[in-house]
Amino acid sequence: MTDSNNWYIEHFERTGSAIGYRITGKLDEVQSPFQKIEIFQTTDWGNLMTIDGAIMLTSKDNFFYHEMISHPVLFTHAAPKRVVIIGGGDCGTLREVLKHKGVESVTQCDIDEQVTVMARKHFPELCDSNDDARAELLFDDGVAYMANCPAGSVDVVIVDSTEPFGPAKELFGPAFYKNVKRILTEDGIVASQAGSPFYEIATIQNLFRITKQIFSIVEVCLFNNLTYPGGLWAFMFATNGLHPIRDFVPARVKASKLKLNWYNAEIHAGSFALPNFLKKAIGR
Amino acid sequence: MTDSNNWYIEHFERTGSAIGYRITGKLDEVQSPFQKIEIFQTTDWGNLMTIDGAIMLTSKDNFFYHEMISHPVLFTHAAPKRVVIIGGGDCGTLREVLKHKGVESVTQCDIDEQVTVMARKHFPELCDSNDDARAELLFDDGVAYMANCPAGSVDVVIVDSTEPFGPAKELFGPAFYKNVKRILTEDGIVASQAGSPFYEIATIQNLFRITKQIFSIVEVCLFNNLTYPGGLWAFMFATNGLHPIRDFVPARVKASKLKLNWYNAEIHAGSFALPNFLKKAIGR
Repeated sequence: MTDSNNWYIEHFERTGSAIGYRITGKLDEVQSPFQKIEIFQTTDWGNLMTIDGAIMLTSKDNFFYHEMISHPVLFTHAAPKRVVIIGGGDCGTLREVLKHKGVESVTQCDIDEQVTVMARKHFPELCDSNDDARAELLFDDGVAYMANCPAGSVDVVIVDSTEPFGPAKELFGPAFYKNVKRILTEDGIVASQAGSPFYEIATIQNLFRITKQIFSIVEVCLFNNLTYPGGLWAFMFATNGLHPIRDFVPARVKASKLKLNWYNAEIHAGSFALPNFLKKAIGR
Repeated sequence: MTDSNNWYIEHFERTGSAIGYRITGKLDEVQSPFQKIEIFQTTDWGNLMTIDGAIMLTSKDNFFYHEMISHPVLFTHAAPKRVVIIGGGDCGTLREVLKHKGVESVTQCDIDEQVTVMARKHFPELCDSNDDARAELLFDDGVAYMANCPAGSVDVVIVDSTEPFGPAKELFGPAFYKNVKRILTEDGIVASQAGSPFYEIATIQNLFRITKQIFSIVEVCLFNNLTYPGGLWAFMFATNGLHPIRDFVPARVKASKLKLNWYNAEIHAGSFALPNFLKKAIGR
């Protein structure tokens, strides 16, 4: 909510914490069939997108998230060619994935076209690869899309979803991950937005339990997300192929010559180090 | 400030961002000669201390900070015996340092006794080592204390200060670090609170520039600080002795059998990995 002094504050009721930004005003809003999307102009962080009142991203710091959901998984897989992004409607993940020259096709399937419409208008820099010939943008139910994908056809699935409430709920369940495994190639990898390991440990515990029944390797990758409550955030990696730490080849990162603001080979290695409380929570 | 619905929100004016907690009320407050200290009870994070309106710590997550300002530096030094903490009035750093059995004496010098008075009352768990025979608690000007320390008498200096404004300003200047070098043993190390590398890059750039003129090794250690704006926070290590990455001996951590919630050997190694934007900012 916006207070009287023009600060947009997200009161994160479930955990009793709040984050916010100083704004100069609201630029846009739309009520889609799924959710309410609003765009604010901040004084210091560029534009701000909220969905149903939850802060999603700012212009200035979204690279933390988009680089970390994309590059660790793409540099773990030996040669990813076919990538599917479930969610990701702001197109920032799509842009990062398309930086990899070896990637031959990427399908982004977000249920809500309005997220992309708003991103094109207010975060055009995130959408500057939308017209790449390798990109396919679908606006459909990600679960249904996955159900129709041919078996063994995808190298990397990235689940770039909102929290396990509302339209994204099914993306955190076992049926979805059985389908992920079915459509992945033998050495395919799925990387999923897994919530805050400190604020909402149950989300990551639940995902860990589900994916461990389906994949031989499950690892948690931590990163800083300034615009989410608490700043400590997690992605979960699951695969029957290469291990994101033991099989990682640092030299590939430098050789790729990708222009990145956050990710590098040392960050990759460090991001899989888990604090003691988290190891304990997932039974390590 | 507290809004009408009982959320304590810190509006971080310099960077246009805010964080906050839901509270049930104010437990205590004192105006010391230096600053105003307030204690609130939160709904989910235990007690909350603010100094001049800035959130300092909560009961639930302060271990992130206190473990990371203490253990990486103490496990970098080969055998730290004599430790000085400048600031650190809440005594959480003192407690972590005293977990190391090899440490023979620790002096904590905070300018404001009221911080410790409030910590004893409202964060007693942080003060449970204050009566350790190895601990000395001084309430004095840290800069003056350092000026009177004998040369070459200290193995580790920890600068556990507030931001470079108000009483802590001098702790970020070159005269202070020249004194740090003077009182350190040849292989001594200083670890300093160095601000947010994303929100206020100038603080870390400035500290890096100053310390590089005095010490041969300067490294930045990143960690998550949920209660500071942005969550990404930095300590700076400076030494003419062992290197915190290259000379680190992971086996020592396990052998110490310390009971820790955050820090372990992998976290140590990972915390010195710097994102590309930060490498660039400090000329790496």
